[in-house]
Amino acid sequence: MRYVVGVDIGGTNIVVGTMPEDGSRILGIRKERTIGKDGPDAVVAQIARMVRESLADARPATGGEPLDVAGVGIGAPGPLDTRNGIVLLTPNLGWRNFPLRDRVRDAVGLPATLDNDANCAIFGEWWRGAAANAEIVVGLTIGTGIGGGIVFDGEIFHGASDIAGEIGHMTIDSTGRRCKCGNYGCLEAYASGTAIAERAVEGLQSGALSRLGTYVDGDLSSITAQIVYDAARDGDEYALEVIHDTARFLGAGVASLINIFNPEMIVICGGVTAAGGRLFKPLAAEVARRAFRPAVERCRIVPGSLTGTAGVYGAVAAFKVQTWGAA
Amino acid sequence: MRYVVGVDIGGTNIVVGTMPEDGSRILGIRKERTIGKDGPDAVVAQIARMVRESLADARPATGGEPLDVAGVGIGAPGPLDTRNGIVLLTPNLGWRNFPLRDRVRDAVGLPATLDNDANCAIFGEWWRGAAANAEIVVGLTIGTGIGGGIVFDGEIFHGASDIAGEIGHMTIDSTGRRCKCGNYGCLEAYASGTAIAERAVEGLQSGALSRLGTYVDGDLSSITAQIVYDAARDGDEYALEVIHDTARFLGAGVASLINIFNPEMIVICGGVTAAGGRLFKPLAAEVARRAFRPAVERCRIVPGSLTGTAGVYGAVAAFKVQTWGAA
Repeated sequence: MRYVVGVDIGGTNIVVGTMPEDGSRILGIRKERTIGKDGPDAVVAQIARMVRESLADARPATGGEPLDVAGVGIGAPGPLDTRNGIVLLTPNLGWRNFPLRDRVRDAVGLPATLDNDANCAIFGEWWRGAAANAEIVVGLTIGTGIGGGIVFDGEIFHGASDIAGEIGHMTIDSTGRRCKCGNYGCLEAYASGTAIAERAVEGLQSGALSRLGTYVDGDLSSITAQIVYDAARDGDEYALEVIHDTARFLGAGVASLINIFNPEMIVICGGVTAAGGRLFKPLAAEVARRAFRPAVERCRIVPGSLTGTAGVYGAVAAFKVQTWGAA
Repeated sequence: MRYVVGVDIGGTNIVVGTMPEDGSRILGIRKERTIGKDGPDAVVAQIARMVRESLADARPATGGEPLDVAGVGIGAPGPLDTRNGIVLLTPNLGWRNFPLRDRVRDAVGLPATLDNDANCAIFGEWWRGAAANAEIVVGLTIGTGIGGGIVFDGEIFHGASDIAGEIGHMTIDSTGRRCKCGNYGCLEAYASGTAIAERAVEGLQSGALSRLGTYVDGDLSSITAQIVYDAARDGDEYALEVIHDTARFLGAGVASLINIFNPEMIVICGGVTAAGGRLFKPLAAEVARRAFRPAVERCRIVPGSLTGTAGVYGAVAAFKVQTWGAA
């Protein structure tokens, strides 16, 4: 059995794991804050160290023999040139035209591949998670922003130049909230973790009755989406309303995706899944109101199941596709 | 050289044409109003007669010898079950679960295939029109409503149950205009021919200064999208503004499609192309403002070039894919 190491690089954390090529289990999971301030070379060194540590951690669990390691699959924020393994630009890390794939390959001495982080998360859910083996999967990763991924017939759909899947930047209100991308009314501007916290604070500033402020000792700038979910779980009516609004915005976007793709599965990953049924129930209702019924009936909307490691699984699956032609 | 007959069934017209399998020319074009009021049997008889007439018309142009006719490709409004050749429902014609493909096959004595009319129009543009041979094409057909089609790697993308490509029903304003489909804020509710005429009339009723009324002897209910284009061509400022607004709504939808699919080509077909540069120039500007720049730079936005026959070409191409595996 060959092994592949998966590396999921985020603006905040790097997660690394080692798995047999069939993805039947994940070993040697390492998670660290990305050392972003010292430039890309420092991150490459960090990745190489984490890969070595993950492989060392994995070895006892596989009988102690040296592992047959085929390579390293990397998921990184885009835009990317996946074919040439280059990170074109990462606003969070400040990289430009950085040949990440080959630098990691040289640092660890193993073949490496590169793909988009959100694509990898959805591909991981397709490979070994909540969307396992569905033929047409559209997915969203909802955290600080909203990323997306499209999987057809067991492959990530990359589009003409590796940009496909920017589902967070579909317009749901053409004259609506300004998005960081420059557009108005993107789904991300309403339903990302950041936007959920912003909308919650806006309501409080307008006098909404809520106990949300007590979670942050009155410092509204400290309110996060997670705190909104916590307050909703504790029964705060206003926090529940913020989540309900989120479900309606998300429902408009998901309904469009269902009308466009007629997918078997919509998978939603990331921090937002912590809201659970409080989000997913009204989301399903909103989608049913908006999208074509036969398409809605054909599609399951599910939370991702590989919490924290979907991107690692997907990076390994993407390595397999790029190296051997199929996951 | 084998020949294939293409049949494009609309709520208003049926268009039939005969072409060699390479699609190098179209012969024996017949166009008639759909005899919808007498039920589906009457339409099948009409189609069979038009197919025979088209073949008879084509014969002299091909040397007068009997044609080697491989079959008939049919495009019809959906939702359909393409695999079984069944029209599930057509609100305009009032059909339900009608086995159109096999009924036409029996009536003309030739193999037949069935696919969605909007899919066929975009597939025709991919096969022999403005989007010729691009790998990733997303298209809109803008007439009474807005249909759509998605072509990847030389095949229509059907989704999990033949509904994919309902691009007219993506939400661009989640609390916006009511759409016939039941949803609020669909692209179709703003940018279809029907919606263009409706918005024009609403403005006139609110006191917009315009000569539009003179085109219909003051009967505003007679204003159509075509009349708006005519008035714009004649320099009417208000009509130009209506088209400009259309470009902005359409731009929000097209920008989302570019961010989601990162396509090589967006092709826009149907009556709306009569607005020409007055529509396409502000549309391109709006898309550039809204979508990711590298995706915008990679994508051409073009009007369809097979005016009136795109659906016939596409029905033939779809016949080829279903029968021989490729167009």
